[in-house]
Amino acid sequence: MPLAKFSVTSKSENSTKVVAETRTGFKIIVDEPKNQGGTNDGPNPVEYVLAALSGCLNVVGHLVAKEMGIEMKGIEFEISGKLDPAKFMGQSEEKRAGYQEINATVKPDCDADEAALEKWIKAVEERCPVSDNLTNETPVNISL
Amino acid sequence: MPLAKFSVTSKSENSTKVVAETRTGFKIIVDEPKNQGGTNDGPNPVEYVLAALSGCLNVVGHLVAKEMGIEMKGIEFEISGKLDPAKFMGQSEEKRAGYQEINATVKPDCDADEAALEKWIKAVEERCPVSDNLTNETPVNISL
Repeated sequence: MPLAKFSVTSKSENSTKVVAETRTGFKIIVDEPKNQGGTNDGPNPVEYVLAALSGCLNVVGHLVAKEMGIEMKGIEFEISGKLDPAKFMGQSEEKRAGYQEINATVKPDCDADEAALEKWIKAVEERCPVSDNLTNETPVNISL
Repeated sequence: MPLAKFSVTSKSENSTKVVAETRTGFKIIVDEPKNQGGTNDGPNPVEYVLAALSGCLNVVGHLVAKEMGIEMKGIEFEISGKLDPAKFMGQSEEKRAGYQEINATVKPDCDADEAALEKWIKAVEERCPVSDNLTNETPVNISL
């Protein structure tokens, strides 16, 4: 199977806001709230990470359910994370800059029993691309 | 400095689409294109990851530039990644599901010399929360 490539081209509109455009023509506005010095025209970067995770778990969740013969009527997600702004603000060199951990509660609407759901969620976690990129090390090569 | 918490609540509208809502009331539509069985109402999960990275590099890029006395007029980003769909599709248990690596080209519009820009980009990379969460392991705790 050939590798699938995804890309965005982003341009800053000010010091907190970018408009990212996908190859398929969608525009994604990323900004910070006013209390963070932003213009609040969109969700912030780390909120998009959580939204991406929910979207990915949904796609894989439905795919795996179908394989297992589970009729999935819908899935709800509550996803949150905490980070220490000190590193990002330049006030600490010790702690990590991003989420220290991410907690996701997944509520599938289906008739599967507990054992089937445990098997389902384990497979979803293993096969979810965004979960993989967060859980495991992913090289990020930044060049000027 | 207290930890900053971010969260989304997401609900599936179909097998490929979720609407994620942030605590600040923004709605983020995540979907897959039609050739992936989706309804193409928004960017897909892994595109949002790249957009989030660009937004985060922008915020930190401006912050670090200000600290260094660099007048930043704007920043452009080209970010891409490749992944092998085999794991996600359930056709391989060997390879990782997500991006194998992410490549970002950052084009700052400023008058800083090369040495200053090298120092700048190194600090940005270290202090960017999204870059941290991708580059390093982040526990993702998924519960039913």
